[in-house]
Amino acid sequence: MTDSAPESENFAERLAAAVRRQRTPAIVGLDPRLEQLPVPLRRAKGDRPEQQAAAYREFCQSVIDVVAPLVPAVKPQSAFFEQLGPAGVQALADVIRHARQRGLLVILDVKRGDIGSTAQAYAEAYLGLGADDRRPLAADAITVSPYLGDDSLEPFVATARQHGAGLFVLVKTSNPGGRQFQDLQCDGRPLYRHVAEHVERLAAADAGPSGYGSVGAVVGATYPEQLAELRAAMPHAWLLIPGFGNQGGTARDVAAGFDAAGLGAVVNNSRGIIFAHSLPQYKSLPADRWQEAVEAATREMIEQLRSDTPAGKLIGNRR
Amino acid sequence: MTDSAPESENFAERLAAAVRRQRTPAIVGLDPRLEQLPVPLRRAKGDRPEQQAAAYREFCQSVIDVVAPLVPAVKPQSAFFEQLGPAGVQALADVIRHARQRGLLVILDVKRGDIGSTAQAYAEAYLGLGADDRRPLAADAITVSPYLGDDSLEPFVATARQHGAGLFVLVKTSNPGGRQFQDLQCDGRPLYRHVAEHVERLAAADAGPSGYGSVGAVVGATYPEQLAELRAAMPHAWLLIPGFGNQGGTARDVAAGFDAAGLGAVVNNSRGIIFAHSLPQYKSLPADRWQEAVEAATREMIEQLRSDTPAGKLIGNRR
Repeated sequence: MTDSAPESENFAERLAAAVRRQRTPAIVGLDPRLEQLPVPLRRAKGDRPEQQAAAYREFCQSVIDVVAPLVPAVKPQSAFFEQLGPAGVQALADVIRHARQRGLLVILDVKRGDIGSTAQAYAEAYLGLGADDRRPLAADAITVSPYLGDDSLEPFVATARQHGAGLFVLVKTSNPGGRQFQDLQCDGRPLYRHVAEHVERLAAADAGPSGYGSVGAVVGATYPEQLAELRAAMPHAWLLIPGFGNQGGTARDVAAGFDAAGLGAVVNNSRGIIFAHSLPQYKSLPADRWQEAVEAATREMIEQLRSDTPAGKLIGNRR
Repeated sequence: MTDSAPESENFAERLAAAVRRQRTPAIVGLDPRLEQLPVPLRRAKGDRPEQQAAAYREFCQSVIDVVAPLVPAVKPQSAFFEQLGPAGVQALADVIRHARQRGLLVILDVKRGDIGSTAQAYAEAYLGLGADDRRPLAADAITVSPYLGDDSLEPFVATARQHGAGLFVLVKTSNPGGRQFQDLQCDGRPLYRHVAEHVERLAAADAGPSGYGSVGAVVGATYPEQLAELRAAMPHAWLLIPGFGNQGGTARDVAAGFDAAGLGAVVNNSRGIIFAHSLPQYKSLPADRWQEAVEAATREMIEQLRSDTPAGKLIGNRR
């Protein structure tokens, strides 16, 4: 728990070091959508998949350039790139590489889940430090779905550990319908608690000096009470908290996700940052200065988390 | 339920027509893996992603050419293509197009699940009749994961109906660890029954002349008792049954998945067909005649399903 701990090859330690270095748990979601891109980017391109992919690449790389000095990680959402087919997947690979070159950790949101050799194939595709021509989509961590059970997670866990990468298992998601199955009472407690117990076992098994292991959990910002419950239930798991901003989660809502030192959680904001140019407070900016809106919105989120959560304690910890 | 029903734009009806036309519910899983490819394909290529993708494309297209006269559909497993990055995704697009040109339905196994506009992006990427340059990965149906709940499925359902495509929701998977969460007793019945009830509601809502709707369920061949239970619980849902062959499921194990007319289920076999060249009974074939093993294994599976399941009734129904 010292702030002089060197960055190790372990994902949990690398994430802790990055959060301490940037003094914030705020991360930026890269969810490009053509109709919401800043006007200069929309205008410059056509509507073929290759052209849209070029616009996504340029947009995301610009966002990365703005936020790299400010935050520890970005979270690209694979769906929007996959929607463009092979050209979109190539753009995703380029965005991952660019983020790493700028010193950011990359948490790739793919929500994959499968069994046996299929799970192994996904793990090898998406997990690892060594993103290169052979593994162009390898990220520092990915999101995975638990429905298929422990043996479906095992190839992801083993590959993550092998490559110093991490996982965030869906436990309690931010959408209203997440309750339908996740909140069912199963043998006396909600389904999400069963998943959380499994995540905690996996996290505790390789927890490092930071106190956290390479398997974490996705817990939405929109359920503050469950966030406190799940923080307690998974003391060794990094929490990835989506739902901040546009989905209604506030800094106060996510406060219970942190440990006493301000570690243990990263909070994602996608649209509220990358599409800040269309928010009322930034709409007066000229269209070609949309990056200023991204920077201002990022700084605003960082300040909110410092004011209203234990993440404020990271300030004194800068190494 | 007549066999003169025309093919409609509805996925359930198209699948029923294809099963009747081929007189079998057997479908072939396309799960290419470099180390298991027939020797001529392994030897001809190098080990860079583009070269592996070319081998996967050639292999899958050859398998498709062999099985297209025999079965109603193929099920490509996206993970193995994604593992090769953009080049692999391009190969997947080529394989999907080739299968359709050969008259096969394509059930793309992606097991996606997400919320809101992200789910919408996945749905638009992978669902639809009109696979073209703009939507190169669009398939007749995909697999989806239910953990995120009803509102996460809604964009998939709406997009599937709009495009005449289908969904198979994971209900009871074929792996041993599937029990961990799926079999938990929740409010008096297993979690998988809750998911099944939701699938049945969705399926019943647009069931056509065949009796089935565009939302189906994945139910593994390795749990015969639950298969009977789930057939009864989802009378309007097509079942996609994996786990036949290499995972241990037999024709007798899947018999309970069919309705009295031999419809209502398709049974997938991947490795037992595409890698039949390495099975003991076909190993004596020269390496360059591996397609003969694929054809023989396909015919063998079709015969087993005819002998030991209600699918035998499809014989008298050929139009």
